[in-house]
Amino acid sequence: MGNDLTYAVLGTGALGGYYGGMLAKGGRRVCFQVRTGFEEVKKQGLVVESRGGDFALPDAEIYAKTDDMPKADVVLVCLKTTANDILPAMLKPILKEDTLVILVQNGLLFEEELSAEMPGLSVAGASAFICSFKVAPGHIKHCDFGHISFALLKKSETSCKLLEKVKDDFIACGVEASVEDDLPTLRWRKLVWNIPYNGMTVVMDTSTDKLMRNPETRKLIKDLMLETLQGALSCGVKIESEFVEKMLAYTDSMVPYAPSMKLDYDAKRPMEIKGIYSNPLEAASQNGADLKKIRMLEQQLYFKQSEYLK
Amino acid sequence: MGNDLTYAVLGTGALGGYYGGMLAKGGRRVCFQVRTGFEEVKKQGLVVESRGGDFALPDAEIYAKTDDMPKADVVLVCLKTTANDILPAMLKPILKEDTLVILVQNGLLFEEELSAEMPGLSVAGASAFICSFKVAPGHIKHCDFGHISFALLKKSETSCKLLEKVKDDFIACGVEASVEDDLPTLRWRKLVWNIPYNGMTVVMDTSTDKLMRNPETRKLIKDLMLETLQGALSCGVKIESEFVEKMLAYTDSMVPYAPSMKLDYDAKRPMEIKGIYSNPLEAASQNGADLKKIRMLEQQLYFKQSEYLK
Repeated sequence: MGNDLTYAVLGTGALGGYYGGMLAKGGRRVCFQVRTGFEEVKKQGLVVESRGGDFALPDAEIYAKTDDMPKADVVLVCLKTTANDILPAMLKPILKEDTLVILVQNGLLFEEELSAEMPGLSVAGASAFICSFKVAPGHIKHCDFGHISFALLKKSETSCKLLEKVKDDFIACGVEASVEDDLPTLRWRKLVWNIPYNGMTVVMDTSTDKLMRNPETRKLIKDLMLETLQGALSCGVKIESEFVEKMLAYTDSMVPYAPSMKLDYDAKRPMEIKGIYSNPLEAASQNGADLKKIRMLEQQLYFKQSEYLK
Repeated sequence: MGNDLTYAVLGTGALGGYYGGMLAKGGRRVCFQVRTGFEEVKKQGLVVESRGGDFALPDAEIYAKTDDMPKADVVLVCLKTTANDILPAMLKPILKEDTLVILVQNGLLFEEELSAEMPGLSVAGASAFICSFKVAPGHIKHCDFGHISFALLKKSETSCKLLEKVKDDFIACGVEASVEDDLPTLRWRKLVWNIPYNGMTVVMDTSTDKLMRNPETRKLIKDLMLETLQGALSCGVKIESEFVEKMLAYTDSMVPYAPSMKLDYDAKRPMEIKGIYSNPLEAASQNGADLKKIRMLEQQLYFKQSEYLK
């Protein structure tokens, strides 16, 4: 790799559009893969409405498919995990020897799954604490927060150095970023938020603020967080119980919010049930933890999804 | 009491209209209390569309309030339990010395609550295994089943004899009926059906058949039944595990059905959450049983109700 990294962003939605957009605005070379509305985005470029200041990237490098893209030093995978079965085929054309593939996705065990399918690939995960959504193809609205945390699946000297450089690029481009030591810890900590709010906004057909205002669902949200801690612990990840209070307070401070799963549900798209529910439940179960309320939420979500997805 | 009993039916809906109607058709004296649409029902009488044969009772004795009614030997309380706070005041004008008050209602501990408010009152409970609903004031549609089981809260020679006579009257009038030995057993057995289906049809906004067809919710329904058995056991009520399979098969055999709580939810009426969820959860909790999935369903139901009931 040279001193200046070439980034590939797969999926230019709420996450890819924002983070890739920030890197491009900061002068990094970013190649965006756009599926829906490619022609339009290619013509008009990207627009990011951000609470940190709106900006446009009329000359953003837009591609329809990875076959047409240059090889990348770093790939930010910002696709829904429901599309992860096509990920190996998508990645192949843009990989160099030491390309680092970072899954900026929600849910547990996708890094392990990718690594099993593509042995030798350098894989990391990233958790984004952000409220953002895609208004239209190439048009992202960033509402709140933005911190991104990275962690490697397996550490090597090369991959550690590269990930540090990625983090420095993010920070230099105005995004709060950090590198964490342990990927399972990163993933489980994010699940403490994702497990209660994604599923409950779908099943109750509501937004985060209403769940927090009702004393019964507020209690249930907390119970679901505590079960997540129990699942994490069974997998060897210790999360301090104060973190639950912190996540509740964090959500209280948020604007009324529909998490990504609720947006998927409303748009009748597949929901990320596997990564956020089934994989963590399976991992916990293999370690002897029976997470009853999370399992119930998973069952309710599969029912809801079956009503529109045949 | 004489040889011929006078029945009072409080609440002439799906249950009161059907069972009271069958008794009246069979020649028993039945005084119906009708709240909604009194004038109309008074004029037109009752109509019952039943799979056992439709019938009309144009001369049914219809009353707007218990003040106007004769005293009764037997009171069939067929009101929603959400109205139970006004029950003692409603009952007073129609009570004789040995009047038997039978709560034909869903849920746990209402007989105990009534008895605590009206010490010395002879109280029984009844579980109706029936699919029926009120089409309009004075117009009942009976779709399936119909068995009714009675049990006394406290047994005395007088009340036992009277309840036997009530059961005989029901049978003579074409209703399958039985007297059971133990009220808590009667109540908990009915909860094995009521707990999963009432709440889940509301929270999933669906009908029983769809919950049974989806493998995830079918499993959850069974889990909720098994938790109900666990709650019952903690309260000293042993229900054989085969009963769960029987209830699942019974529901499979039913026409697609919206339980009463789903009808209440759709009509934005208060739901019977207390009797079907909160009271059983409280009883189980006092006996050391933590029914996690039932508790979660209760919390979800309170949220759903708070969205339309202020």
